[in-house]
Amino acid sequence: MAETRIGRDTKGVYIIAATPFADDGSIDFRSVDSMVDFYLEHGVNGMTILGMMGEANKLTEDESRRFASHILRRLKGSLPVIVGVSGAGIDNLRDLAGFAMGEGAAGIMVAPTPGPAVEDRILGYFAQVCDAVGPDVPICFQDFPQVTGVPVSSNTILSLTRNHPQIVMLKHEDSPGLAKVETVRTKSGTADTPRMSILCGNGGLYLPLELARGADGAMTGFAYPEMLVQVVNRHAAGDVDGAEALFDAYLPILRYEQQLVFGLAARKEILRRRGAIASAFVRRPGPRLSPADHRDIDRLMRRTEDYVRRLGNAA
Amino acid sequence: MAETRIGRDTKGVYIIAATPFADDGSIDFRSVDSMVDFYLEHGVNGMTILGMMGEANKLTEDESRRFASHILRRLKGSLPVIVGVSGAGIDNLRDLAGFAMGEGAAGIMVAPTPGPAVEDRILGYFAQVCDAVGPDVPICFQDFPQVTGVPVSSNTILSLTRNHPQIVMLKHEDSPGLAKVETVRTKSGTADTPRMSILCGNGGLYLPLELARGADGAMTGFAYPEMLVQVVNRHAAGDVDGAEALFDAYLPILRYEQQLVFGLAARKEILRRRGAIASAFVRRPGPRLSPADHRDIDRLMRRTEDYVRRLGNAA
Amino acid sequence: MAETRIGRDTKGVYIIAATPFADDGSIDFRSVDSMVDFYLEHGVNGMTILGMMGEANKLTEDESRRFASHILRRLKGSLPVIVGVSGAGIDNLRDLAGFAMGEGAAGIMVAPTPGPAVEDRILGYFAQVCDAVGPDVPICFQDFPQVTGVPVSSNTILSLTRNHPQIVMLKHEDSPGLAKVETVRTKSGTADTPRMSILCGNGGLYLPLELARGADGAMTGFAYPEMLVQVVNRHAAGDVDGAEALFDAYLPILRYEQQLVFGLAARKEILRRRGAIASAFVRRPGPRLSPADHRDIDRLMRRTEDYVRRLGNAA
Amino acid sequence: MAETRIGRDTKGVYIIAATPFADDGSIDFRSVDSMVDFYLEHGVNGMTILGMMGEANKLTEDESRRFASHILRRLKGSLPVIVGVSGAGIDNLRDLAGFAMGEGAAGIMVAPTPGPAVEDRILGYFAQVCDAVGPDVPICFQDFPQVTGVPVSSNTILSLTRNHPQIVMLKHEDSPGLAKVETVRTKSGTADTPRMSILCGNGGLYLPLELARGADGAMTGFAYPEMLVQVVNRHAAGDVDGAEALFDAYLPILRYEQQLVFGLAARKEILRRRGAIASAFVRRPGPRLSPADHRDIDRLMRRTEDYVRRLGNAA
Repeated sequence: MAETRIGRDTKGVYIIAATPFADDGSIDFRSVDSMVDFYLEHGVNGMTILGMMGEANKLTEDESRRFASHILRRLKGSLPVIVGVSGAGIDNLRDLAGFAMGEGAAGIMVAPTPGPAVEDRILGYFAQVCDAVGPDVPICFQDFPQVTGVPVSSNTILSLTRNHPQIVMLKHEDSPGLAKVETVRTKSGTADTPRMSILCGNGGLYLPLELARGADGAMTGFAYPEMLVQVVNRHAAGDVDGAEALFDAYLPILRYEQQLVFGLAARKEILRRRGAIASAFVRRPGPRLSPADHRDIDRLMRRTEDYVRRLGNAA
Repeated sequence: MAETRIGRDTKGVYIIAATPFADDGSIDFRSVDSMVDFYLEHGVNGMTILGMMGEANKLTEDESRRFASHILRRLKGSLPVIVGVSGAGIDNLRDLAGFAMGEGAAGIMVAPTPGPAVEDRILGYFAQVCDAVGPDVPICFQDFPQVTGVPVSSNTILSLTRNHPQIVMLKHEDSPGLAKVETVRTKSGTADTPRMSILCGNGGLYLPLELARGADGAMTGFAYPEMLVQVVNRHAAGDVDGAEALFDAYLPILRYEQQLVFGLAARKEILRRRGAIASAFVRRPGPRLSPADHRDIDRLMRRTEDYVRRLGNAA
Repeated sequence: MAETRIGRDTKGVYIIAATPFADDGSIDFRSVDSMVDFYLEHGVNGMTILGMMGEANKLTEDESRRFASHILRRLKGSLPVIVGVSGAGIDNLRDLAGFAMGEGAAGIMVAPTPGPAVEDRILGYFAQVCDAVGPDVPICFQDFPQVTGVPVSSNTILSLTRNHPQIVMLKHEDSPGLAKVETVRTKSGTADTPRMSILCGNGGLYLPLELARGADGAMTGFAYPEMLVQVVNRHAAGDVDGAEALFDAYLPILRYEQQLVFGLAARKEILRRRGAIASAFVRRPGPRLSPADHRDIDRLMRRTEDYVRRLGNAA
Repeated sequence: MAETRIGRDTKGVYIIAATPFADDGSIDFRSVDSMVDFYLEHGVNGMTILGMMGEANKLTEDESRRFASHILRRLKGSLPVIVGVSGAGIDNLRDLAGFAMGEGAAGIMVAPTPGPAVEDRILGYFAQVCDAVGPDVPICFQDFPQVTGVPVSSNTILSLTRNHPQIVMLKHEDSPGLAKVETVRTKSGTADTPRMSILCGNGGLYLPLELARGADGAMTGFAYPEMLVQVVNRHAAGDVDGAEALFDAYLPILRYEQQLVFGLAARKEILRRRGAIASAFVRRPGPRLSPADHRDIDRLMRRTEDYVRRLGNAA
């Protein structure tokens, strides 16, 4: 059985799960199951649910809980699951965190709340969050300034993990960000600052380079999770070139999927075409695919499969 | 009895209501009652609840509904109430709007959702909102770019009210904004664009000047609502100088209260001191008053009362 | 003769000077002279030129130098002058700083350059600035996130003044900002951090409250500098109530002038009406006053003079 | 000889030129020459100078003019050159535009100036720009909200090109942006709106997809301009698959180079390694390459050359 909590040494691929809807907009729990199976079959090491890509802010509170509960109970601890609990109010965040941990979550993910973007505010906010959820709940700090509007220095991230033993993981998706990965890797795990696990988001656009800088893996929702898994595994095994060659074969479609906002619709459609979910429905407001977008996806999926086949033949 | 729905000719003062909490953070319904009484006694023409100042995003869904329901049932239509329903997902927005209207709300208030800040996105978003809530629900468009991060041109506002007969009101709180009030006033109520009611927010900082540009009143939460009411009434009665003299007497404390984010804590404390609510508690994350802030409030309240007394004596 | 350099104990009113243009858009040096006389007659303690309000970014390099040189030579050290040198490139900044100091400036003002708004970047940027201009040039750090788009924590400001002995002054115009003034005042002038002079901008909107929190004075361009001077002097002399009463008499027009962007046009028009400059011309792109704006200014100037007269009679 | 002005039907690759510096920070005119030769040898159809990538805002006015003049005189009209003239003041913009056109530029590029991001302001700003530079100067509108902070709707872009016959070209670098390319392509060249040339920036990250949506080419500074040229040419010749295969071979290094801010340092280093310029110096403030960055570039250049060689062998 997997360890039940995320920690400072957590490695691998934590796939950001979509929230599958039926065409009428309700949560499609049958697709939840098939999606979880899809992720498991493709070898992910963990799962992150109710993130931005999971359209968490468009669910009702009840839906969020039912969705989290359904997945956690199905997995029964066989795979660690991080639950996104970011929100405007700390009481609501605490309640959802408590619920999720009670259902067996491996940790929670929290992004800085919008507001005056001074970094001493972030320190104060996370002190409140840690106080509210209690010291036993492991926290992944989500650093995604393009979306949160709250840029955060490496120094502030290091302060957070130093001040709060429970802030054990960084979801890195600042951009550009290679130097930041390097800084957090180098300056944590030192005499004064404990090691921080670093999983990289940003759609995976720089994954091999981030691994070379010391990242521990990926946390993103790319619809071909098997690539993420193999890249991380090969890299860990020392096959840096092989990891990058595989990555490059998927890069054209990956860079298409990582478009902000729009990418969610593309990703759900690719998951649908691959059989993971029954419908690519995105709740409003949200992107809709045009005929040209569908043609792009046709083309990119076909080309990706060609590249991967050729790469396999060459190997 | 007041008309039950807001419309294109709505005028007066719609006070933005706080959400009163007990010191343990729960909604204090006894204070809800005393606060509503306080607003009624001070002559407001309407009330707006579950706005940003109402800490709506820190309530649970259930709390939002119980709070709205409590106020609407207590008022029984004796005062029109606008319910803020802004949120990330249109389904949740629609559900809350439906609930509020069912309980007797006079309309809903909606701010543009965060996202790429191109104005054609705003047009699309409000088309979805109108479609979702149905054509019978009057909408107040909240234009508050400092907080939403979504600036909106006068032209876009005029398109919205032209395209959607139900978008009848502008809550104006762009800054600087006098030219915008003038533009919307001049270019609505024309052959091609129906009149739009304009109520001004921004803490009331420019209220007399906005009235001179054609605004219909105020929608803000200033803790001395009697001033807002008298200023709007005197202005409507032609006593422009008297209106402004009264406003100026309150301006020192008003400009203190209109500080972004921080102002909420000051406002709740002033409401508490005036007997409207029992506790100035603000949910986390939120501003806390320091000893120096308390001294500021002591001083500003005392000085305000002096100014107003002197003004009364002079009259 | 005034001390020639700003320092950590600098106090008083540093007026932000406009750049006067003729109606054809060229710098009107005769108005430069009359404006400087106007500021001197009204008792300011220093002057800041080529700031944002000085439309510095719309001058040519040659114009900037001729303007600075003209004022510095005219004043011959009789009044300390801070020269704004903010700009995209550090070489240009260094050259202008060197020129200004050579002409007798008392210091330079620098705002963080736009870019990724992480605070460790700010620390790096100011290390480069200090290195480029050399250790003998006193620097005023301009903290104006609403305009620069770069929010900065109190902690970062304290690090800057601790790391760089030449960063002696804070131009404070964050908003809300009273707690920040208090923090910088309390945490500088301590065992580990030297005292920092704090002059407040933001149009002066909170000046009496900022003085109560320990600010040393004002640095703003309000077109009635005599008020700023008297408020600071009375406050320093212990007449806190008298200072605030005077301030309040001017507050209606002050809050009109402090509107972002638009305020510059209003301020130049008021300076023109008061005889300080010959034309209110603002270079493009820039705000233009409408007939309604002119009526506002008529009214606000008249009312201000009434208030001040009445206050004088009451004293 | 090439046509001397850009127009509504302009197609191809306009390379965004770097500004080469010596290691002492001065402009290295010998490298300017070799860089221009490099671009010519690799077949570009035009050149854009003094853009953001050209560090234009870190040059003195004199340097900008000498740099532009040097290139324009060297090319003697053999290649159309667009000169970036964006800046805070319209007078300065007009003067630089006049100078550049006098020296033989093919047009100017203008981005919206920072300020309140309402789109009716953009319309007003470009009316002033067109008025200032005169109707004979062709303008390329730069749509780069990530950097300018000013998002602009397709509708506003279409209004600009409709209202101002001289706004003939869109430099498209909004993100995500495929739908925007499609909209501008479809809705210009119609009965009421003249055709707009669309050249795509964003480092080229989506170039083949943008060409499929109707873009006319690329305007970006990728250090392998031969790829951009061949992709555009093959696509125009109907070899859509061949174009994309070539693009994909370069995509790993392209996505590295397109990182905001940081990318400039990488690009200059790659240009240096390829012999186009003598030094990769970037003026302060600006990114510096770390040892890890150099290793990334080693690796990515080597892999790119391998991919391209293999692709050639396969063809």
